[in-house]
Amino acid sequence: MGPLDELRVRLAEGADLRHAAGVLGWDQRVTMPSRGTEARAEQLATLGRIAHERFVDDEVGRLLDACEPLVEKLPYDSDDRSLVRVTRRDWEKARRVPTKLRTEMTREAARGHHAWVEARRTSDFASFLPYLRRNLELRRQYVDCFEWSDSPYTPLLDDFEPGMQTTEVREVFAVLRPALTEIVASAPEVDASFLTGNFPPEKQRELGERMLATLGFEEETWRLDRTAHPFCTSFSNRDVRLTTRYQPDDLESIWSSLHEAGHGLYAHGNADSLTRSSLSGAPSLGVNESQSRTWENLVGRSRPFWEHWYKPLQETFPSLDSVELDDFVRAINRAEPGLIRVDADETTYSLHIILRFELEQELLEGAVALEDLPDVWNARMKEFLGVDVPDDARGVLQDVHWSGGALGYFPTYALGNVISLQFWRVVREALPDLDAQLAAGDPLPLSDWLRDNLYALGRKLTPKETIERLAGSPTIDPEPYLAYLREKSAALAV
Amino acid sequence: MGPLDELRVRLAEGADLRHAAGVLGWDQRVTMPSRGTEARAEQLATLGRIAHERFVDDEVGRLLDACEPLVEKLPYDSDDRSLVRVTRRDWEKARRVPTKLRTEMTREAARGHHAWVEARRTSDFASFLPYLRRNLELRRQYVDCFEWSDSPYTPLLDDFEPGMQTTEVREVFAVLRPALTEIVASAPEVDASFLTGNFPPEKQRELGERMLATLGFEEETWRLDRTAHPFCTSFSNRDVRLTTRYQPDDLESIWSSLHEAGHGLYAHGNADSLTRSSLSGAPSLGVNESQSRTWENLVGRSRPFWEHWYKPLQETFPSLDSVELDDFVRAINRAEPGLIRVDADETTYSLHIILRFELEQELLEGAVALEDLPDVWNARMKEFLGVDVPDDARGVLQDVHWSGGALGYFPTYALGNVISLQFWRVVREALPDLDAQLAAGDPLPLSDWLRDNLYALGRKLTPKETIERLAGSPTIDPEPYLAYLREKSAALAV
Repeated sequence: MGPLDELRVRLAEGADLRHAAGVLGWDQRVTMPSRGTEARAEQLATLGRIAHERFVDDEVGRLLDACEPLVEKLPYDSDDRSLVRVTRRDWEKARRVPTKLRTEMTREAARGHHAWVEARRTSDFASFLPYLRRNLELRRQYVDCFEWSDSPYTPLLDDFEPGMQTTEVREVFAVLRPALTEIVASAPEVDASFLTGNFPPEKQRELGERMLATLGFEEETWRLDRTAHPFCTSFSNRDVRLTTRYQPDDLESIWSSLHEAGHGLYAHGNADSLTRSSLSGAPSLGVNESQSRTWENLVGRSRPFWEHWYKPLQETFPSLDSVELDDFVRAINRAEPGLIRVDADETTYSLHIILRFELEQELLEGAVALEDLPDVWNARMKEFLGVDVPDDARGVLQDVHWSGGALGYFPTYALGNVISLQFWRVVREALPDLDAQLAAGDPLPLSDWLRDNLYALGRKLTPKETIERLAGSPTIDPEPYLAYLREKSAALAV
Repeated sequence: MGPLDELRVRLAEGADLRHAAGVLGWDQRVTMPSRGTEARAEQLATLGRIAHERFVDDEVGRLLDACEPLVEKLPYDSDDRSLVRVTRRDWEKARRVPTKLRTEMTREAARGHHAWVEARRTSDFASFLPYLRRNLELRRQYVDCFEWSDSPYTPLLDDFEPGMQTTEVREVFAVLRPALTEIVASAPEVDASFLTGNFPPEKQRELGERMLATLGFEEETWRLDRTAHPFCTSFSNRDVRLTTRYQPDDLESIWSSLHEAGHGLYAHGNADSLTRSSLSGAPSLGVNESQSRTWENLVGRSRPFWEHWYKPLQETFPSLDSVELDDFVRAINRAEPGLIRVDADETTYSLHIILRFELEQELLEGAVALEDLPDVWNARMKEFLGVDVPDDARGVLQDVHWSGGALGYFPTYALGNVISLQFWRVVREALPDLDAQLAAGDPLPLSDWLRDNLYALGRKLTPKETIERLAGSPTIDPEPYLAYLREKSAALAV
């Protein structure tokens, strides 16, 4: 066995362990009896530790050294050259963090999570404060394991958006914030009262599954289950798990399911040759999120999509019989500032994110005292979105991320929105008949194109290389996103 | 960290890997989209290989050497002394089989399984023959890794029934066979026509879950799912997974669920101190099966149990309104020879097993030519059960076990029947009011007693030590089982 084969075997083993942990995580969130939690945490810790130990082994470095000359003549995006290049980056990054710190972070994240669940329930920020402090301190130690030039925030961002500098995000957000604020300020009032009503979950499920089945998944490669906090995971490109939740009085499950289906189509579209390697997945959370947003919003809130699906929807829920298609489409595209990020519409969503991005940097640098965080949060919510925060549960405690010290994650959501429109412009050029296809209930040309041009690449290219390959430039450009929102806002006012 | 702690940490890690594989196996059989199969096989192979490699490591032997003097003064059944003793046995056994042979056996078992699925579908024994031959050959090589005195079958039996000699099983079966044949021959005709009818699966499920909830599981520690071939697995004593299947025209799901619940109560009753160690579980398949049989048959087919549950059953399925309780109990206790093992009643079941036990020894010793197997099978079925086998699908190809070369497994089913009655005699002495308790819908005194006296022990004692502790003698004694069947048969004739 040559060094390349040896490397492949090692990475396949790592992929197996990672996917095994994925199955345990899915089970924990979808099916596990709650008292299985303690044992499950140990099982996940063991899988994670073994995978990490085996990956950061010196032998992987020796194999990489031996492989590099073997692949340097291959095309840049060939499987083998990509495997060696991406693994080199993963390996060097993984080795920088001492096992002791990594273990400590995992433990404190779990403790922080428990404390947060209780603190949010009782809206008691003070009880959460010591855990937040400890996790933040560990995150600072983590940052110290890396070199950075522009901001200590960059190593954290890099975990989710490899190669991205904090300054680049700042530049994008500096354009977004005033523009979004303006769009929101001029957003017309839209009647959406009919979106609240009696929508039996079982019927939502049936219709939702019918929709998802048309998007491009091959048969017997996916499933949709119910969970408290929807997510998508996959254990190979032929085993994709979507989850959603059904509220009996609204239709949000439709867009939540389409969102997760976007992530799922990405995983499903990974080339077979990337199976059991470190190249499966997406280059970054932002690029991955661009696709969940594409299917949730650019497809799932578009008029053509609903030209096909509105009739089945009305047949399923007769209370919509008296609502015109145009009024329905306006309602699902309205912009309305609110308290809760996960409930936010497409336009205000990014404002929630920019607020968190700024706060995260200030927290990391110590510019905001932790005990002042609720007050600062509430003032910023008023400033950014014009809303008054009634309590910390609906304010600074609303999100799970900080409970485990996961700084750097939030910006990827807004970047996903921005990137989705950069790609969408290219998609529309490549598929001139897209609207007619969607109106005919056929999104396959779209999903095929995205699979062939994006999903199949997996993690072969960096986020920027991926964006450059599709959009022609590696720059994150907010203009297409803003143009889309402005156009949509103008259409609403009609 | 002393050697005992070091050993505990290593074994905890092994338990985590084993239980992680358990989750992957459960998911594969209950929820996985079918095209996830290939990746799942790789994930399971990787987990199995890593767990095995880490367990057979020389360091485990050094730790055991260091631990033995530390525990020798402790009580025989203390956690620590049991851990060292049981691990020593597991370790020495695991090291005897070369990794190459183990890998080959796993691979050929998977290939054999595929071939068997197809062969059974088309009732084509000839297509399965080369796979059976190959698996049998590997099983002979496996036997050669061990020392044995009475029969080459003993090392295979030992995998499932540690410490059991083939000659001991032969002695038990030599008593069973003529006695069972006599009981079957004199079995009265019983009307069971009302057990075939219209029994909507959803209603079976609701009633079944209500029953299971009374048996002694703590809340949020178990769940019941549907699958094609019912099984039970667990990932800790607080995460027990039961499965069953519902046929719309019969009520077999009730006893299938009670059967798996018996396995589940065993796992649930393991002492907390055995969590994440090599001591969780049951001492053998036979002892484990004794408990599935206890709950399925000794409880689930008893008149007292149905004194409580017959009314809810009638309320669920009104077609039983005209059927008297006594007639129902007679019907679910009838003995009737048939072709298929898994459909067999309590009495004829063990005859199916004895047939297989004899054939397995002959196959291993080469006393039966493989190409003659279908003919031999059919002749034996006529001899043992008086039935004519119409095709190999309902004959020699009916069971999955041989497809993967799993010889030595079948006898444990019949041993389970036998042991269940040895324990039951003791249980009835300890719980004089058991019938009244069951009739009142309260099986908790029974499940508490079994938990405290049996399930809590896990794998601390060998099967024989376990039987001796409960029944007073280590001998497998078929008499209580036969007395029970004779008494039941006599009651049916009334």
